[in-house]
Amino acid sequence: MPELDDSFVKVAKVHGSLAWHSHDDEDELFYVLDGCLRIEMEARTVVLNRGDAFVVPKRVRHNPVAEQACLVMLIERKSTLHTGNAITDKTRSIADQLRPV
Amino acid sequence: MPELDDSFVKVAKVHGSLAWHSHDDEDELFYVLDGCLRIEMEARTVVLNRGDAFVVPKRVRHNPVAEQACLVMLIERKSTLHTGNAITDKTRSIADQLRPV
Repeated sequence: MPELDDSFVKVAKVHGSLAWHSHDDEDELFYVLDGCLRIEMEARTVVLNRGDAFVVPKRVRHNPVAEQACLVMLIERKSTLHTGNAITDKTRSIADQLRPV
Repeated sequence: MPELDDSFVKVAKVHGSLAWHSHDDEDELFYVLDGCLRIEMEARTVVLNRGDAFVVPKRVRHNPVAEQACLVMLIERKSTLHTGNAITDKTRSIADQLRPV
């Protein structure tokens, strides 16, 4: 996985609803490579289409939802837990995320 | 300009050759939104087309070249000088880069 200082550049295929969560200390960048991703937040929802980018600020609770399969580039600090403190059946450790597919 | 922790997410229209330079302490991510960007390095050259991303590691001397106008998303730490220690007529301060166009 490419590294950018203390961040990873991740590419993920997502489908469905991830989990409501937040990151205490880390902003998180979403960039949609293909498809459509909805990011639900408590104050508003943003809809990202291919080519759209959005930064979820630290401490903002959010839930990424892809109605159809969606390809996303994420830039996350290495310390970021991708579902925050929420543990769901979609939670993957960094070791799992680093495993070649 | 969107912020991602201690980085800026920049979108730049580039054309021509920037300058040979390096960054002592910062990796730099290039993501081509439109067009084609060549990144010359001493050991090799990479050619990035639309949708391609590349991280130039810290301390690697590089020179971005766009034969035609090219739209690039950059993720750079706030401390990053975009032409490193090289000062050219294309060098812009962060204040200049932050000015709305």
